[in-house]
Amino acid sequence: MSRKPKKLLNNPSDVPAEQLEGLLYACGGKLTKIDGYSGVVRNDIKSDQVVVVTGGGSGHEPMFAGYVGKGLADAAALGEIFASPSPDIIIETTKAAQKGKGVLFVYGNYAGDNMNFDIAAELLEEEGIQVKTVRVTDDISAAPLSKMSDRRGVAGDMYVLKIAGAAVESGYDLDKLYEVTAKANFNTRTMGVALGACSIPQTGKFNFELADDELELGMGIHGEPGVRRQKMASADEINGEIINSLCADISLQAGDKVCVTINNLGSSTYTELLIANRKIYQELSARNIQIYDTLIGGYCTSQEMAGYSVTIFRLDDELQKLYDMPCDSFAWRK
Amino acid sequence: MSRKPKKLLNNPSDVPAEQLEGLLYACGGKLTKIDGYSGVVRNDIKSDQVVVVTGGGSGHEPMFAGYVGKGLADAAALGEIFASPSPDIIIETTKAAQKGKGVLFVYGNYAGDNMNFDIAAELLEEEGIQVKTVRVTDDISAAPLSKMSDRRGVAGDMYVLKIAGAAVESGYDLDKLYEVTAKANFNTRTMGVALGACSIPQTGKFNFELADDELELGMGIHGEPGVRRQKMASADEINGEIINSLCADISLQAGDKVCVTINNLGSSTYTELLIANRKIYQELSARNIQIYDTLIGGYCTSQEMAGYSVTIFRLDDELQKLYDMPCDSFAWRK
Repeated sequence: MSRKPKKLLNNPSDVPAEQLEGLLYACGGKLTKIDGYSGVVRNDIKSDQVVVVTGGGSGHEPMFAGYVGKGLADAAALGEIFASPSPDIIIETTKAAQKGKGVLFVYGNYAGDNMNFDIAAELLEEEGIQVKTVRVTDDISAAPLSKMSDRRGVAGDMYVLKIAGAAVESGYDLDKLYEVTAKANFNTRTMGVALGACSIPQTGKFNFELADDELELGMGIHGEPGVRRQKMASADEINGEIINSLCADISLQAGDKVCVTINNLGSSTYTELLIANRKIYQELSARNIQIYDTLIGGYCTSQEMAGYSVTIFRLDDELQKLYDMPCDSFAWRK
Repeated sequence: MSRKPKKLLNNPSDVPAEQLEGLLYACGGKLTKIDGYSGVVRNDIKSDQVVVVTGGGSGHEPMFAGYVGKGLADAAALGEIFASPSPDIIIETTKAAQKGKGVLFVYGNYAGDNMNFDIAAELLEEEGIQVKTVRVTDDISAAPLSKMSDRRGVAGDMYVLKIAGAAVESGYDLDKLYEVTAKANFNTRTMGVALGACSIPQTGKFNFELADDELELGMGIHGEPGVRRQKMASADEINGEIINSLCADISLQAGDKVCVTINNLGSSTYTELLIANRKIYQELSARNIQIYDTLIGGYCTSQEMAGYSVTIFRLDDELQKLYDMPCDSFAWRK
């Protein structure tokens, strides 16, 4: 259809604030926005708990604010569209949430986020607030396994936040929380495919161009280049390559137990997501991998990007127990 | 981006079967496909219950198969993309589900569905299976209120199925089930806005055309013409008109209690859906309408159509009690 981005908005510069307001209304009073800063905190944080603070650029809704809730993140610091929150937003959000038992930062591994969360952590530490950090690095296309810490965080944030939030509910202290959250990140791997680009409301321009007969494997959620562009192919061919790449990267073995998310990056149809799940399921079953749970929908989007990502989250006994715990947020109720 | 439909599929004629397979895999063994027919039945139907059978054309995923589960529909008969299931599919699906206590058909009001479900009902009655029917008519743009029974069924199906399924779980007999389900339909109203068209995999063509600077209010979920085409406007302007139209149509009064769904028809961004919810919430609050629950996401889609619909579901004490009951399906867990 339209070759220019086409969205039903008010003033583009008001997008981050207005969409956050819409999300808070949808949560029926469970979250509070911090005065003067684009941060949200859940209202039922216990007085003696470690808190999990997440955040990043806006534009990936329901990530990040949609994961603030019981059993998930306790607070989120939000930047402009595709831009990191500033250190002061992160600091004020953290102060509004923290209870003196320590803070775990959990966010996707991007230069801007790393810098601003690190500055915030340093300043918070100076005020006597203990902070540890887990950077999510699930995007296998962003760097080789030998440089896993260079990989970007994408939809896998959801599993890492799920485990962190459940561990907090289970009474883990900050050190144990850090450990299990880092393990959850290590057990999470994602690969995506794009058929069309995303755009930022304030520029009104697409972030990249893909020809009508092309797709891109492994692009990032801001339109970062992927591993390969190629002509359109069959769904089974592309999904087969994705699941093969994921299985190899995480060294899945027969008998392993995994959760699967087929995440709509924006404008893929449920038709495509379900057909992807068919192939993913078939391939995992053929390898005698047990699929413990499957989620299909928009969990970490990239505005109107056409395409989706596949995330594999490998469970062990501890992770399964934490995964099974309830959670309650805009994006994930369990 | 692309002016031609662009989807990652295998053989287009295999789409309905392959996406259903993907959905069944995602449900972890809770549903069974009927041999030789495109119908699904949930596995835990009780031996003494009335059953709720839904269905319609494919292409609206997660509607209809995504609403088969405990506390929702017991079975769904599925047609090709945007085409009614044939009477034999409906009959075999119903026979696989029914337990001799009667059957309630719940489906959207379309000529093809009406004809085929009516034929099925007649043939099932001849075999001694009692059938009643509630046709969902929530689309206020499709006909004036004085001809409510001419209106199409769209996303409102979800609330009508929710109430029907909860009533079954509560032990309602067929007559009482019919009554409360008809009441749920009467209390459900929807209006949509489209910014871009949908396409059917098998034709590979868009169902309608909208200029780059145009939107359409009130179009149907197969691209049926709406009430008006106009130049793009602000989100608040369009969402204000939608909520005003809905409130007037259902005669909402101060003190009324409603559920709200902002339903992504396909490729609208969460950004737009959340900004829509902001205005809907503001307008309802200004009228002293209580918002009991809000759902935002893809509940009844139209392939890659850009746009969304807003559904208002008015509660009374009976409907609220039924709404509060748990449900468990691909599309809706509560």
